Amino acid sequence: MRASSMKNELDSCAFAVNEFLLSQLDGKPKALYQASSHYIRSGGKRLRPFMVIKSCELLGGAIKRALPAAGAVELVHNFTLVHDDIMDNDEMRHGVATVHHQYGLPLAILGGDILFSKAFEILSYNGRKVGIGDKEITEMVGRLANSCTVICEGQTIDIDFASNTKFPSESQYIDMIGKKTAALFEVSCAMGALSSPNPGIKDVDNLASFGRNIGVAFQLVDDLIGAIGDPKVTGKAAGNDIREGKKTLPILLALRKAKGDERDKLMKVFGSKAASVPEIKDAVKVVSDMGIDEDVRNAARQHMAKALASIEGYSNADARRSLQFAADFIVGRSL
Amino acid sequence: MRASSMKNELDSCAFAVNEFLLSQLDGKPKALYQASSHYIRSGGKRLRPFMVIKSCELLGGAIKRALPAAGAVELVHNFTLVHDDIMDNDEMRHGVATVHHQYGLPLAILGGDILFSKAFEILSYNGRKVGIGDKEITEMVGRLANSCTVICEGQTIDIDFASNTKFPSESQYIDMIGKKTAALFEVSCAMGALSSPNPGIKDVDNLASFGRNIGVAFQLVDDLIGAIGDPKVTGKAAGNDIREGKKTLPILLALRKAKGDERDKLMKVFGSKAASVPEIKDAVKVVSDMGIDEDVRNAARQHMAKALASIEGYSNADARRSLQFAADFIVGRSL
Repeated sequence: MRASSMKNELDSCAFAVNEFLLSQLDGKPKALYQASSHYIRSGGKRLRPFMVIKSCELLGGAIKRALPAAGAVELVHNFTLVHDDIMDNDEMRHGVATVHHQYGLPLAILGGDILFSKAFEILSYNGRKVGIGDKEITEMVGRLANSCTVICEGQTIDIDFASNTKFPSESQYIDMIGKKTAALFEVSCAMGALSSPNPGIKDVDNLASFGRNIGVAFQLVDDLIGAIGDPKVTGKAAGNDIREGKKTLPILLALRKAKGDERDKLMKVFGSKAASVPEIKDAVKVVSDMGIDEDVRNAARQHMAKALASIEGYSNADARRSLQFAADFIVGRSL
Repeated sequence: MRASSMKNELDSCAFAVNEFLLSQLDGKPKALYQASSHYIRSGGKRLRPFMVIKSCELLGGAIKRALPAAGAVELVHNFTLVHDDIMDNDEMRHGVATVHHQYGLPLAILGGDILFSKAFEILSYNGRKVGIGDKEITEMVGRLANSCTVICEGQTIDIDFASNTKFPSESQYIDMIGKKTAALFEVSCAMGALSSPNPGIKDVDNLASFGRNIGVAFQLVDDLIGAIGDPKVTGKAAGNDIREGKKTLPILLALRKAKGDERDKLMKVFGSKAASVPEIKDAVKVVSDMGIDEDVRNAARQHMAKALASIEGYSNADARRSLQFAADFIVGRSL
């Protein structure tokens, strides 16, 4: 299957999920629902719902059965974005004003909260409507709720990293992104499996492992983009995470590898809001020249290989290729 | 049964619920779980869990079966308190610092969020552990999630009331408190019914109706206390809601009833942070002298009567008396 037809498939899943979600977020008071659907209406690839749908298809389930779980994970994802933006006090996200910036703090908190509650409403009510059994719905609710708990823990650890003067170890970093990011990918694929007509526990485990590893790879590449991504591609200032002093893997690796003059150039601007654009560019060049890009992509590829090993025994070649495409897309994203 | 033994029963339910919840909120990072359990550790009557437990007992279920649902509603209740305090920028709640005041905004948002996710984890995992069927768990998840959606809507309407110069009608006010407050009482009793061994839909409806009417009565009395409560009893400044310009039923009724000089005294201080203590006392006296207390208690009693009618056919006299006690306690609370 060619990349362009896979791209079409991603778009067509996104279309189905958007249509479903916007119909669920059409209530009153209008301002509350506008605030809650603000990011959903502003676009997005719907990568997590895609993984729910393709995990379900891998086990013989049609997209219709996967839509409640697909919608629920996207709502949870959006809920974390809305609340994270408040905590970080960010004004913009992907070219649109953040929810609290546009609608004010109360509607941003409530708009986030209602995304959360709608996710669980959809799982139970719409799950039943499409024929998913109560046993599987109960299992999905427990797993999705637990992933939300874990995401809150991961987010707290991330905040601790930022306020602590010490640098985390590589394994502490991997643990944190496992919670903050990979938990939702893991539950996406597990819920996709649970949405299929006759899910076995082994299938759910395999898909969960696939999702978890893809999630770690996703965050590794995301952090690479944050450190040395091209502003023309990413839409963010060059070396954004270096300037903000984020303790992500690419930056940890760079600080460990750099010596003498290179290290000085990096440390001078790390976490310095006052650093000049040429100084940041110099620091980005230091990181790039040390081959950190390749180191991080290799780490991401290792997780991708583990992910793909979890699903290699399944016979539905189309769905398997779609999941492989998602994995390639995630690891291969441009800087 | 005497009031003192009923009080013991309320305390003993609260003890069981506290023990259960604190064991569920003992995780890492510690600061996150401390923030999330801050209000739970600082006391509270656990009225909603009491109603879950007694609704379950009314239908022949033991307290053990009701604990997951009882814990879940208390977590949801606390989640709304934590987030509401951020929105209102309150510094104190019942004599302790608010969560965001003590732990900062990020931990207050995340601490609230994790209460929400734990509620649904407990419903599914612990619900299964105590032997509740997946069908009933799925039903509880849908109802609890829906009540959270409705609470967010009610909270938004309440914020709209405050920022709007127009006064809401009595029915708009009842609709708002139905969403903001009564929805959680309604789902508490419905989930208590669903936690019993063989819940019928009619039983669930009856208990839901009981809870809904009790919830409306609860908020009516709460708003009465906010308007004219005795600071020695309530711990809040006299005429707190009058000074803050809250458009609650007692204040709406007072403004409608007051004429001439009395109306002037009220309007002068309504929503005026600069009003002097004697001026506020005068306004409170105006409201009291007009008999608003009795008007609001009568409205609350009407809802209480509807509530009690919903459960009068049940044969478990102990549980029915406990629910009646809860109703009396709510409507009879001192000013």
